Amino acid sequence: MAGYAADKKACMARLKRAEGQVRGLQRMVEEDAYCLDVLTQVSAITKALQAVALKLMDDHLGHCVAAEAVEGRGAIEVKVREATEAIAQLVHA
Amino acid sequence: MAGYAADKKACMARLKRAEGQVRGLQRMVEEDAYCLDVLTQVSAITKALQAVALKLMDDHLGHCVAAEAVEGRGAIEVKVREATEAIAQLVHA
Amino acid sequence: MAGYAADKKACMARLKRAEGQVRGLQRMVEEDAYCLDVLTQVSAITKALQAVALKLMDDHLGHCVAAEAVEGRGAIEVKVREATEAIAQLVHA
Amino acid sequence: MAGYAADKKACMARLKRAEGQVRGLQRMVEEDAYCLDVLTQVSAITKALQAVALKLMDDHLGHCVAAEAVEGRGAIEVKVREATEAIAQLVHA
Repeated sequence: MAGYAADKKACMARLKRAEGQVRGLQRMVEEDAYCLDVLTQVSAITKALQAVALKLMDDHLGHCVAAEAVEGRGAIEVKVREATEAIAQLVHA
Repeated sequence: MAGYAADKKACMARLKRAEGQVRGLQRMVEEDAYCLDVLTQVSAITKALQAVALKLMDDHLGHCVAAEAVEGRGAIEVKVREATEAIAQLVHA
Repeated sequence: MAGYAADKKACMARLKRAEGQVRGLQRMVEEDAYCLDVLTQVSAITKALQAVALKLMDDHLGHCVAAEAVEGRGAIEVKVREATEAIAQLVHA
Repeated sequence: MAGYAADKKACMARLKRAEGQVRGLQRMVEEDAYCLDVLTQVSAITKALQAVALKLMDDHLGHCVAAEAVEGRGAIEVKVREATEAIAQLVHA
């Protein structure tokens, strides 16, 4: 089971909204909106996606990683390394 | 005319691709994909959107800001301040 | 004990290097170096500090959070929430 | 002359403060401060350095790039490309 199972509905709603925002962006470009207005909107979507990512990470640490920890130390190191790599992707995205 | 006028087609193509990526993300969540695989995909979309943003900024500086500069110093300060604020949004997004 | 106890020496070495980099930056500004060369160096230091932060997070998840997880679920939620907030700070820094 | 010439003193003051913050970080690690307190401080320094970077970019666009623009279009393209690359470094730092 995915770590975000309990939040799946909220997660999907956020992603639907992000899809709508990307389509809104296309309309802005289609209508030759001012460059910086388009840019501001891109930053807003990026921020919305990062919020999704942080929620997923929160769920992942609280469920998947914690579950491994309860099982013992061997597995946790692999899980934590994996989580840190995902955090690094987010930070440098 | 928008600064990205000459790149409008390429810009739209990137945004169509981003929309497809966000829909792909929804499928992943729908199918209970592993948290960190979803996260990796979120980082990829964020990176793709930032590439769009940087291209828009490049066009904006090269067309809109440069055009103001040719007109004289008064206007350029407002334009540069505005551009820097958009850059700040991108950096802290 | 801090989660980074085992890496304390390496961590201190990185921070000494970062201090040297910031001093190098001061010399560049003192000598009127080209704006974008200064900017490139600022980005390099930011990246170095983020590497320190990611190492700290890795140690924190692998030691402090994992230790709580072994103790049982009650404590882990607080720890994970706290970790996610720190990750959010890093992402939006 | 560097684009930040008029702000050199303020820029140096910010960099002195950043140096002090990095030294404060070393003390925290030396005294085994809690991982996430160290992390919060790293994020604060990163943010302070990005503020320096954004000020430098503002000065650069307003002086160096604008000066080229006044001279004519040939030079501006190189300058803008260069500025956008520096912005990309900042965004992905």
